Amino acid sequence: MTDPATRLRNALFYPKRIALVGASADPARLTARAQLYLRKHGFAGDILPVHPREKTVLGETAYPTITDIPGAVDFAYILLNTPQVEGVVNAVAAKGIPAACVLADGFAEAGDEGRALQERLLATARAANLRILGPNSMGIITLNARIACSVNAALEAESLPAGRIALVSQSGSMMGAIMSRGAARGMGFSHIVGTGNEADLSAGEVAGLLVDDPDVDAILLFLEAIREPQHFADLARRAHAVGKPVIAYKLGRSPYGAELATSHTGALAGSDAAAEAFFRACGIARVTTLEGLLEAPALLVGRRPPARAHRAVGVMTTTGGGGAMAVDCLGVAGIEARAPDQAASDALDAAGFAHHGRLLDVTLAGTKPDRVAAALGALQQAGDTDLALSVIGSSAQFRPQDSVAGILRARDAGHAKPLAAFLVPQAEQSLRLLTEAGIPAFRTPESCADAIRAFCDWTTPRAVPAIAPVAHALPDRPDEADARRLFAALGLGSRFAVLRNPQDPLPANIPFPVALKILSPDLAHKTEVGGVKLGIANADALREEAAAMQGRVRRMAPEATLTGFLVQPMAKGLGEAILGFRRDPEVGPIVLLGTGGIAAEVFRDVTLRLAPVTEEEAMAMIGEVKGLKPLAGWRGLPRGDLKALAQAVVAASCLAAREDIAEAEINPLIIHPEGEGVTVADAWVVRR
Amino acid sequence: MTDPATRLRNALFYPKRIALVGASADPARLTARAQLYLRKHGFAGDILPVHPREKTVLGETAYPTITDIPGAVDFAYILLNTPQVEGVVNAVAAKGIPAACVLADGFAEAGDEGRALQERLLATARAANLRILGPNSMGIITLNARIACSVNAALEAESLPAGRIALVSQSGSMMGAIMSRGAARGMGFSHIVGTGNEADLSAGEVAGLLVDDPDVDAILLFLEAIREPQHFADLARRAHAVGKPVIAYKLGRSPYGAELATSHTGALAGSDAAAEAFFRACGIARVTTLEGLLEAPALLVGRRPPARAHRAVGVMTTTGGGGAMAVDCLGVAGIEARAPDQAASDALDAAGFAHHGRLLDVTLAGTKPDRVAAALGALQQAGDTDLALSVIGSSAQFRPQDSVAGILRARDAGHAKPLAAFLVPQAEQSLRLLTEAGIPAFRTPESCADAIRAFCDWTTPRAVPAIAPVAHALPDRPDEADARRLFAALGLGSRFAVLRNPQDPLPANIPFPVALKILSPDLAHKTEVGGVKLGIANADALREEAAAMQGRVRRMAPEATLTGFLVQPMAKGLGEAILGFRRDPEVGPIVLLGTGGIAAEVFRDVTLRLAPVTEEEAMAMIGEVKGLKPLAGWRGLPRGDLKALAQAVVAASCLAAREDIAEAEINPLIIHPEGEGVTVADAWVVRR
Repeated sequence: MTDPATRLRNALFYPKRIALVGASADPARLTARAQLYLRKHGFAGDILPVHPREKTVLGETAYPTITDIPGAVDFAYILLNTPQVEGVVNAVAAKGIPAACVLADGFAEAGDEGRALQERLLATARAANLRILGPNSMGIITLNARIACSVNAALEAESLPAGRIALVSQSGSMMGAIMSRGAARGMGFSHIVGTGNEADLSAGEVAGLLVDDPDVDAILLFLEAIREPQHFADLARRAHAVGKPVIAYKLGRSPYGAELATSHTGALAGSDAAAEAFFRACGIARVTTLEGLLEAPALLVGRRPPARAHRAVGVMTTTGGGGAMAVDCLGVAGIEARAPDQAASDALDAAGFAHHGRLLDVTLAGTKPDRVAAALGALQQAGDTDLALSVIGSSAQFRPQDSVAGILRARDAGHAKPLAAFLVPQAEQSLRLLTEAGIPAFRTPESCADAIRAFCDWTTPRAVPAIAPVAHALPDRPDEADARRLFAALGLGSRFAVLRNPQDPLPANIPFPVALKILSPDLAHKTEVGGVKLGIANADALREEAAAMQGRVRRMAPEATLTGFLVQPMAKGLGEAILGFRRDPEVGPIVLLGTGGIAAEVFRDVTLRLAPVTEEEAMAMIGEVKGLKPLAGWRGLPRGDLKALAQAVVAASCLAAREDIAEAEINPLIIHPEGEGVTVADAWVVRR
Repeated sequence: MTDPATRLRNALFYPKRIALVGASADPARLTARAQLYLRKHGFAGDILPVHPREKTVLGETAYPTITDIPGAVDFAYILLNTPQVEGVVNAVAAKGIPAACVLADGFAEAGDEGRALQERLLATARAANLRILGPNSMGIITLNARIACSVNAALEAESLPAGRIALVSQSGSMMGAIMSRGAARGMGFSHIVGTGNEADLSAGEVAGLLVDDPDVDAILLFLEAIREPQHFADLARRAHAVGKPVIAYKLGRSPYGAELATSHTGALAGSDAAAEAFFRACGIARVTTLEGLLEAPALLVGRRPPARAHRAVGVMTTTGGGGAMAVDCLGVAGIEARAPDQAASDALDAAGFAHHGRLLDVTLAGTKPDRVAAALGALQQAGDTDLALSVIGSSAQFRPQDSVAGILRARDAGHAKPLAAFLVPQAEQSLRLLTEAGIPAFRTPESCADAIRAFCDWTTPRAVPAIAPVAHALPDRPDEADARRLFAALGLGSRFAVLRNPQDPLPANIPFPVALKILSPDLAHKTEVGGVKLGIANADALREEAAAMQGRVRRMAPEATLTGFLVQPMAKGLGEAILGFRRDPEVGPIVLLGTGGIAAEVFRDVTLRLAPVTEEEAMAMIGEVKGLKPLAGWRGLPRGDLKALAQAVVAASCLAAREDIAEAEINPLIIHPEGEGVTVADAWVVRR
């Protein structure tokens, strides 16, 4: 008996007998397409149309129901409208078919009724070990095996170039768009899957089935939302282990895109920054241009993530303006075109190249293959770059063999540093020659910069720090004191006292002057109801202020439960930070760090990581928050205790293990001079 | 007698007799190309090779020198090496030829010797009314007149698609790259000029010659640097007047690109923000992608800048994922895909479209031409969008007539709101059909967003406010008091006193507490030499501090000339700004406004405009500085005197008229509550 993953993989990608439930006998209809395309593209197995009345459909024997099909069926594509899907799924489950695909939409994304329907389908499927692709799935195409089980119009094409790149797309229409764009540049696919709205199988799980497929060199993901992040993390880890890159394009970089991507599929939107952090943590390379998704694979396939990326490349050009344009676009993407270091410089001198600065212009030397090869070979010697880029001008258009030959010759010299080419004019033939030779070749300076940036940012999947949930009981409706006790249990305590009544004495360990705050699980904004008083000088004033505050807050927030008063010493540091913990709806627990005060909001000066983090990662986060720069010894200013801040970030990130906590925040966290730690000035926590 | 511009235009673009000085008889050589290409592409005039020995060159009668050519010559292309250029230019000038082009480089950009050579050439040329294109120019191609006077290898192409778009490129190689990319998408050019290093003729001046050419609908600029900004401003104003868009792609968006673009051409680099402000002020549309440069013309040609851009578009799609991708990319570019307003909504209802949210998904309605036309027509009704975008899926690939027909039908309905299309799959035929029909059609979501953003940002050339130079004498080496007097003369005065000696009495109009600063034209950083003391409470302390300061500064900066002490009342406001005036090396006088303190530097929270500005422009600048948000009534915080701040910006911007001033800055400028004005807390000025 095969394991469930192999059974599913075979059913989805290598079915021998496919039932098409609701196949139309009218070839003009959408629901006829799967049958037409299966046949057209050479499916060698059995096509089993299910039709209530017809004896044959488009030349194949038809069956009135799924149940009537003799023998085992590997895969059922359900082409019926939403209301009819449930009955068919029941029959598919009863027949013991391992996988089905649902074309219709109108399930969880369409409201309560659809959600209930989807739940019933899933319950049926789970009970029968049936896995479901979709709803709203355009199907599956396994190109090498010639299985085009899809209604995607891209299959109208006379032939489909097979290749070694798998594409898993949540969008059905993007399957065809990416396939057609790939075909135009001589790039073929091994498998193309539309996962649609992912009621059951997510893109991550489906892609995971392809990691060990011998026909697959890399996996591309076109994502609208991240569902089941653990599947993506697992996929990426396994892909890394076998040396296959995973490259993602994800919508949601703008708020409008995020809103659409999720309303379209019924998923909840997380933040794009969280998605970005997630991809990096997983070792998934993310591109941000559509062309980049097509052009990055050639750069990443067969390579490992840079051990320590320099975020720098060596650039040679046969065209001054085109080379400068490439350098500029790389710079906009944060990648430096770096001048040759000593080793590269020596190699250039030895090869007789005049050179200065960050662009090796060989215009005068021309595009003779041996000169291009020599220039690239010399740039590959640099110890401080990630790649050597060749920018080719008009020769790419008129002497394709010439301009390509030099790059191939450099490649054949066997240096490990990756090579790539950006062709400045329209140069289809050169692009095709380079693509066939497996050399990454870019059509626009923007996709060139995007793919190279994605390569430099590409990392080994990170090891998730092992943490245990902190043992600390939290009431259902925590107030600030409860939040502070929770952070204290995490090792992030600051002095405070709780007074139940205005007359209660202040413990001796809280020195004046103090800050006084109302305690309530209901008041998120204490200042607005008069619930905060700073700089109270002595015990008499404290009693008086507490009594006045109680009256004030009761008047302004009569519904709020008041649980007492919180008193803390006034504290002043060198700077302030916001430290937060959240559960992103897509990628799960994250920890956020930003400048304190209004800067965090006004300048959006915040960075984040998947939680938990190590102290090293926390230090990297501190380096990314611009407003914390002055605390790192900038311009001779006194240094803040950034080590203590990093430890605080680690502590907060450990809330990831506390499944009962939705969000928590310290704002501000006051940062004292080096060696003097940090102080929690305010805190809150929300239970899940 | 024709005017100089017409004479020059005819010589450059419509020459009848062209001398090729240094034409090679070896067709394999670069210097043979101009002759070969002229003939190949059908030049009907006289080709006059100049060769020291040959009687004929490639079949044409050759002349030993320019002087030996009988009759008038319209244009001389000098193909010789740098050292030989001067002699030829002298002969060209002597013969009264109106225009010459120099292929060689090695002039001003190559150092002192080259600069001297260039100066001599220019002096000769000016004396003879000879205008020079280059050095380092690849020549000129006038496609409709079949004049291919260029060595650009793109002319190897069998035929060149002529069209109505002019291209002026500082980079020679980009002439060919852009031409070839245009040809591949059915886009032809009227004129293509390489201006090279622009010793004499700048891209702005050359482009200006094409504004009134009846063959030109739009002018594209590929720029490495802006030289002679007044020519660009003039060009853009005239082009606007005759309704022809000017569209620029300029290098220098990254520091590496800026460095290269200028080292390559010998120009000084200004800031990209200044270039951006310049383009906007001129009414030049700027694209930031190479594809956008090719695709934006179809959107802008025949149109005027939006009177008041909404920075929003209506989007319909026949593919959910592709539409969401377009919306996402538009959002990243700062353009909102906006949900239909009441008018558009009513039109959609009337046409029977179910719709909700910001993307009109007509997937179910399909791409039937009448439905696409109806959807676009309805979106065009919206009163709050700049454009209606159609995103087309697989039908663009397989039923090009269908997918294009609907858009054409919508266009023919005659609504003024622009239409555009983004084609999601590879769909060459649809792109070609749309291009031929003059409908803007985009190949990538990024170029789609770039071009639409450029259209929304496109403005009418601004009227430069008329200002007179403020009459105020400034010493050669001004100190802070001089700078303050200058700003006071501009209407931006704050109380201060100058004490020449520590014992001098403080005038009565300066109330304690005060700040004391050393005065010196030599000390830019007074704090670092102990030259600043804040919060001095009374006259005794002031005398004492001044004496101590004098001693301290003399010890720490013994070379500095000390001109006395500046005393000013301590002032505290709601916020602080930096207000600066500079002369950008490329675009000239600019005024900068940023948050005060370290935020300006840490967050680069600065905006700028060409100087001078109006109060309205100054108000717009204030709105762009994030750190000033809290002063605009954000979250109920007290409002700052932003009107006084705007007036201060206007005042500082008037330094543009003071040709003797290089830079000036107030930092910080303290902003008081509404109605209470601003205070100059520190100021400096540098003479040119």
